[in-house]
Formats: sequence, C-alpha cells, structure tokens
Amino acid sequence: MDVTPLPHVVVVGGGFGGLWATRALARDPVRITLVDRSNHHLFQPLLYQVATAGLSAPDIAAPLRHILRRQRNVEVRLAGVEAVEADAGRIRLDDGGTLDYDYLVLASGATHAYFGNEQWAAHAPGLKTLDDALGIRRRVLLAFERAEAETDPAKRAAWLDFAIIGGGPTGVELAGTLAEIARHTLRDEFRNIDPAGARVRLVEAGPRVLASFPEDLSARAQRQLERLGVEVVTGTPVTAIDAEGYRLGDRFMPSRTVLWAAGVAASPLAKSLDVPLDRAGRVVVEPDLGVPGQPRVFVAGDLAAIAREDGRPVPGVAPAAKQMGRHVAGAIRARLRSQAAPAFRYRDWGNLATIGRMAAVVHFGRLKLSGLLAWWFWLLVHILFLIGFRNRVVVMFNWTWAYWSYQRAARIIFGDTTPGDDRDGPA
Amino acid sequence: MDVTPLPHVVVVGGGFGGLWATRALARDPVRITLVDRSNHHLFQPLLYQVATAGLSAPDIAAPLRHILRRQRNVEVRLAGVEAVEADAGRIRLDDGGTLDYDYLVLASGATHAYFGNEQWAAHAPGLKTLDDALGIRRRVLLAFERAEAETDPAKRAAWLDFAIIGGGPTGVELAGTLAEIARHTLRDEFRNIDPAGARVRLVEAGPRVLASFPEDLSARAQRQLERLGVEVVTGTPVTAIDAEGYRLGDRFMPSRTVLWAAGVAASPLAKSLDVPLDRAGRVVVEPDLGVPGQPRVFVAGDLAAIAREDGRPVPGVAPAAKQMGRHVAGAIRARLRSQAAPAFRYRDWGNLATIGRMAAVVHFGRLKLSGLLAWWFWLLVHILFLIGFRNRVVVMFNWTWAYWSYQRAARIIFGDTTPGDDRDGPA
Repeated sequence: MDVTPLPHVVVVGGGFGGLWATRALARDPVRITLVDRSNHHLFQPLLYQVATAGLSAPDIAAPLRHILRRQRNVEVRLAGVEAVEADAGRIRLDDGGTLDYDYLVLASGATHAYFGNEQWAAHAPGLKTLDDALGIRRRVLLAFERAEAETDPAKRAAWLDFAIIGGGPTGVELAGTLAEIARHTLRDEFRNIDPAGARVRLVEAGPRVLASFPEDLSARAQRQLERLGVEVVTGTPVTAIDAEGYRLGDRFMPSRTVLWAAGVAASPLAKSLDVPLDRAGRVVVEPDLGVPGQPRVFVAGDLAAIAREDGRPVPGVAPAAKQMGRHVAGAIRARLRSQAAPAFRYRDWGNLATIGRMAAVVHFGRLKLSGLLAWWFWLLVHILFLIGFRNRVVVMFNWTWAYWSYQRAARIIFGDTTPGDDRDGPA
Repeated sequence: MDVTPLPHVVVVGGGFGGLWATRALARDPVRITLVDRSNHHLFQPLLYQVATAGLSAPDIAAPLRHILRRQRNVEVRLAGVEAVEADAGRIRLDDGGTLDYDYLVLASGATHAYFGNEQWAAHAPGLKTLDDALGIRRRVLLAFERAEAETDPAKRAAWLDFAIIGGGPTGVELAGTLAEIARHTLRDEFRNIDPAGARVRLVEAGPRVLASFPEDLSARAQRQLERLGVEVVTGTPVTAIDAEGYRLGDRFMPSRTVLWAAGVAASPLAKSLDVPLDRAGRVVVEPDLGVPGQPRVFVAGDLAAIAREDGRPVPGVAPAAKQMGRHVAGAIRARLRSQAAPAFRYRDWGNLATIGRMAAVVHFGRLKLSGLLAWWFWLLVHILFLIGFRNRVVVMFNWTWAYWSYQRAARIIFGDTTPGDDRDGPA
C-alpha cells in the first residue's frame, strides 16, 4: 500500500475560476482544500438582480460545501486569505491558521476599484458580493422612502436622483433596471411623490457605453437605455463624489444615490506574490497560467492578466474564468506527471449584456442581436448556466412573475431604517 | 361639496393587527396613515423557516406599500414611533416628525423578553424580525464552520451544541428544524466533523412543551421531537447564559449557540400611554379594544391584553390579531357614526404547531391530530394564508424541493465571516 500523502492542492476562491479548477481535479490523485471567505459560490452575472430586488440572495448562491459534498478529495475551509508565503509554500489565513500547499491555485478574483479616489467608496458603493448587492438594494429602496417623507423640493429631487458611474455591463444593467423600478414597479405605491419622475443617469467617461462591443451595438444599447428612461452621459468624467451628490465635469449634480460600476482591480492578495502585476493589480501569468518563477502557483479568473492570440486581453467574464480554472487543473495534472502544460487558449463564445426589460445586446462572431430577441437569448443562457436545478426553477419563476406583473420579489429593506443610517451597509 | 377634512386614522404597525385594521377601513370616509419601521408586512408564522435557512427573507415578506397600493385612502410612512402623546392627540416619530390623529390604532406587537436578564440578549438571540432570523441563520451555519476548523475536542463539542430555551411553538419549531439540518441537510458536507453528532437540546422551565395544547398532544409533540433527534428537558429553568454556554439548574452546559424562545413582552410603546399594563407590558383594553379613558385610541394584536368569555386570555397568534384588527376598524366606524362599538369576541379556530419534517400537532375543538397528517394540515393552512400568489408558489416550491432533497435553499451566510465576529447580528 502506498502511504505517501497525496499532493495537496490549495485553491483560493470559490468563484468560477476556483470552483471549476476544483471540480476538474475530482479524479486526480490529490487532496484539495478550497478556501473562501464566503460559504457560497455566487452566480455573479445575476448579482445586479439582487441589488435591484428582483431576486433573493439565495436564488443566485449555493453553499460551496453542498456543491462539493460528493467530491471526496475536497475539504472546504471558510476563511479569508491574508498572504501567500511562496518561499515557505504556504498561505496565511485570517483565522490565524496556515495551509501548506504543494500546488496553489489563486482565484480570488477582483473587487471594485476607485483608482486613487478611495474616499468615494463610502458614497458610491460598488457591486461585487451579496453584501454589496443587499447594501445597494437598501439604499435604492430607502431613497424612495426618504423622498416620500421629504417636503423640501430640492432635497426631494436629490433623493429621486440616481446616478450610476460606469457604462460597462454592470452599469448598464443597474441603470436599465432602476429605470424600470421607478417607472413601473413602484407605480401607485407612493402618495407624495411620483416615482416615475425619478432621474436615472448613467455616466461613462469614455466615448460610449459597453465599450467591449462593436460600435453599432453600443449605439443600439444606448438607444434602448434611453427608451427605458435612462439619461446616458458619455465622454464626461466624474470628478468628485460626496454625500450630497457628484461632480460631472465641472457641474455639481445633487444626488443621494450614486452607484459605482466604473472599474475593478484584482484582489490585493496578488501583491503578496512579489511578481509583476499589471495596472489593475492582476498577475501577469505565463502562457500556462503559472506564476513566473513559481512553478507550483497558478492563477485563474479575474486575477490573471493574459492576452489572447490576437493580443487583446482575455476579458474578466465567467466563461473565461471557468476555462482558466479547467486549464489550471490540467496544468497541475501535467506537473504531477512531470509533463509540460500547454498554453491557455481562450475560447471566445461571444459577448452579451442585458439592459433591462426586453432589452439586451448580443455579439457572437458575426451575429449581432439587440432588443427583445437578444433579451430572450440572454435570459436563456443565464438561467441555463445557473448552478442547481432549484435555483434555475426559482429564478425562472421569479422572472416570469416579474415579466407579467412588473413586480420585483425581493423589495425588503433589512436592518435599521432610521434616517441618518442610510449610507450604511446592509444590516 | 363637503370640504371638511376626513378624520385621520393613524395605525402603528403593519403586522396582522395593523394591516387588517387598515384594510377593513378601505371604504370608510377616513384617511389613514400606516406607520411601521419596516417596509414590509411579515408572515411571522414562517419566520423560523428563514432562521433555519429553509426560506429566503423575501419569501415571507411583502412591501406594505405594494399590499396597499390600490387602497387610495392610505399613506404608508416608514418610521419608528417613539411615543404616544395622547393629550395632544399625536404620536412622535423617530425621524423627528409627528402625526396628529383623530383615531389611533396601536398594533406594534411584541418583542422577545428576558424578564430582568437583559444581559442574556447578547448571547441568546430571540426571533421576532427578519433581521433576527438572518442573525440566527448566520450563527447556526457559522457554528458548524467553526466546529469543522476547531481541533480541540471540547471546543468543537461546544460549537456542535445547540440549545433552544423555551418550549413554546417557536422553540419547538426551531429545535425540530435544527435537528433536521444536523442529521440530514449537512450530510456529507464536512470532512472533520459529523454534523449528525450535534446536540440539539430544547429546554423548558415548565412541566411540558407546547403548554397551550392539551397534555396528550404535548406528550406526542415531545415524542416526535425526540424521534427527530432533539433532547427535551422540561421542568428545569435556565439560570445563566454567557458566551460559553448556559446553566441548566446548577449544571453548566458548554454551548456556543443558545437561542431564546422563552418569552415575549409587549412593545415598549404601551408605556407612553399612561394606562394600566399587564405583567407582560400589554395594554389592558376595554371590551371593544379601546384604551381605558382614551376614546380615540384602540389596540389590536399582541399589544392588547383581553380575556375570552371563559376567562382565558386571547392568545398572541396571527388569527387573533387579524380579528382584533377588523374589530378595531368596526369600532372606529361606530365612533364615526356616534354609535357604541360591540365587545370583541375571539373566534378560536384551533391551535396548531409544527415540529419538523412530517411532524406537527393540531387541536381544533375535539379534533386532535399529530404526526404526518397534522403536518400536511399545518402546511396547507400556512401556505394558504401567505399573502400574495407569488410567495405562495415560491414557498410551496421550496418546500416540495426541501421535502424530497432534504435541502434548505437559503444556506447563505451574509457579511464578515472572520472568527470573533460570530456573535454579531447579521451584516
């Protein structure tokens, strides 16, 4: 009997990159520890639906332990990772523990970034975790409540002013959905304000929204947003954000609800690796997704900076993270057999973004869709890729319900609702 | 044209009492302001399911504004009420505002009470609001995580020790469901602990559980609990609770998760009325549910202390609160017509309590059921009375799913999971 302990693979992060790497190693002679500070895998593409009260948090999340319960070579550890100590071959956890690894997969993803304006974080929350989503939901719903109770017209207008900074997919989704909430969902519910009169403004510093799409689809997306009631401002940077509003170019815009969708940066864990990072803090990996000079360490998902064959960067989207996760599993398998790992090749399935009710854009090779058809396509793909039969059915039901009734299921404000507390996170 | 302003009815609390009073006044010549510090009506009978991760918070809650959107004589105000100033005919809100009333309906309900041991609150949370439920869910799920990471056997055992103090319906529901989670839901998910070995103890100071039921049903409920894996201790009071455990009689029981289901007291708002209260702080009302000496103030729901015809108190259950709410509406209508209001008569539809998977007790007149049949009956009644078609369908689906899979949909831990933070509320 072979009593050599199996090689220990430590995977940091239970998102698409880490979870797909873990699952791909199910039949390999390794023992795996998956470390995450959350107890759940999150279906991030639908996070904006939790933020806008369309879905409950558990609809788009599944406990990591449950997903992996039958994969006997995995242990799940609930902890944050503070640092990689590559020389010693171990990671340091925030609960005081450490984990020694033979192979390390870093898939701790990205967080929102304010690019040197960290003081904006308190006034313009971003959307990366379930807690972020519940915090945004709370702010948005409370803003209408404050407007209803406010008698000063200027203050009321500021409560009914919603700004989303950043015209990428998240910003577009949030803006389109907020406009729908204001115009349809809240209809008839207030007595002193007309929610349909709320202003929803999407601000993009660059020349167009959805810059990763072809220009004509960007233009179509903007038209669809405007039809939903969103005011789109492009080519103008936000130069300041505080509790009272934001500065657009040199005009101050009073607004009590500013949401941040303007940028992400890699998880700070990358810094402890002591290797070159790109401008967004991502690890510039080898072609096989290995960390330069550290043959036992790999990176998957949003934390990895790597180019496609045509030189463009691999995008920070779920399909790319899954592909990287599987590739890293293969690379570890190759290492175990003392073989060389092949280079990672990103398979681009196309690009799609939802805008709001019956509006989306789709770009698959030469296929370009927008409007209702693109929306159905988007819906189908997203429900299909949700993990778990239960979630799929519940989400489908919630959406069918929302579609016909214009209602949003999860309009519940948690925690203290006392005024003055509005800018806090979710309680 | 009559330009006299309509009489203003202020209803405090959007629970069963307040909401049913409000709805019953839909066609009366009054304008109503419903004040609640939450934005939602809560279907409290299923709150334990949110606490035990079977349902999402939005499954059992509906926005008050949405419920009342078509009732044009109602305005909803999101605010807490600090005091009733009966002499001035107004209430003071926690957002600095006041509301003048012609008629006042107090339906602010009950909260959990520690009967002079308020220091226990930090260690043994109770279950009254959605935030309470999410806090309990968090503690329970984190306890298994801490046990999995703990290597000291005594400390691990304390993490796997769950105590529920109080053998009324809430305590019985929590204990039965926790036992199911430990024995079934978490099966195969941990590598270092066996969740099925967790201890779930239900402690009742009185002689039997479910004291509001006939003795034989109490005995059957206890047997069903024991079959589910709950250790039931009766006739022994808890004499101390701290972060490490609790004292049962004179034995200290190490336990990191103690839940409080041992008692409720009326909302503190009653004190500001300056009228006699009963031991639990409830207002001893007139036969028509009016406050003695204050002809324009009524009480509905858990805040009212009133006896049935046979002298037993009207119980603090949802059907009683709804009946009182409707009765108060009728009493106000009578006052408006300068008529006398009839006395409130509680119509007792029976008593039912669920215990856990396929176990419940039902007492309707001479009908006594227990076990599977009682459980189906309980299920049917509770789904039927849920507000809203959507909630009903989602809850039914979640339960069908849970029934066949033993899975619980909402096992998501929100907020910071760093150790040391475990005793905090939900983040």
